[in-house]
Amino acid sequence: MLLVGHGSKLPYNKELIEATAEFIAEKASEYIVKPGFMSINTPSVEDQLDAFRAEDIDMLVVVPLFLARGIHIDKDIPKLLGLPERGKKGTFKTNGKEIPLVYADPIGSDPLLAELMLKNAADAIAELDH
Amino acid sequence: MLLVGHGSKLPYNKELIEATAEFIAEKASEYIVKPGFMSINTPSVEDQLDAFRAEDIDMLVVVPLFLARGIHIDKDIPKLLGLPERGKKGTFKTNGKEIPLVYADPIGSDPLLAELMLKNAADAIAELDH
Repeated sequence: MLLVGHGSKLPYNKELIEATAEFIAEKASEYIVKPGFMSINTPSVEDQLDAFRAEDIDMLVVVPLFLARGIHIDKDIPKLLGLPERGKKGTFKTNGKEIPLVYADPIGSDPLLAELMLKNAADAIAELDH
Repeated sequence: MLLVGHGSKLPYNKELIEATAEFIAEKASEYIVKPGFMSINTPSVEDQLDAFRAEDIDMLVVVPLFLARGIHIDKDIPKLLGLPERGKKGTFKTNGKEIPLVYADPIGSDPLLAELMLKNAADAIAELDH
């Protein structure tokens, strides 16, 4: 899994993407997880695509850690992956073989996201007593 | 709960914030949930603060639907809430009474976020068979 982050001059986006990549790797041992950034931070998406070419994998899943669709999601990332604009499936050449490439959606509206917001609200309220 | 979104010229950020506000309201009937935007989209954060002044509430919880900390989170939103830079707790004047105001963290690194990424990956892989 290539976990794609936006990148930022401030350290927080990079920290978020890297910590989430670690959580995913701990939870799902079937994945090799590498974080890659669209801009400013390294490694870049291109660097990590190269790194995946040296791995013995059966499929490449690209997951953008973005809140919602936009130019990066619809246009820039597909271009880096060799997909047409808004394309979701393609192939990836690695170690002389060709494997499936799939491009997942960004976060989007999801009950899990609502749960996360409720958790952050509850944590903030709990801090009132401190 | 005031759910704060970034706002965008494209429709996707607004759709995400509004859909998430609805999910939260369905899940947690103890909250009146209003979405407000930092820029471009309406209603603005200020509009919704005014709207909350007309509600019979005991506390105002402000939850930013942002991935990570940054200028909006540390500086701009606290200013709108009458909090010092990086402040998390204050008071809110409504209907002649003064109630606690708490300002929650953005999404940040959380196991739930990792789960959401795994779900999006699984959904994309399932699409391969279609």
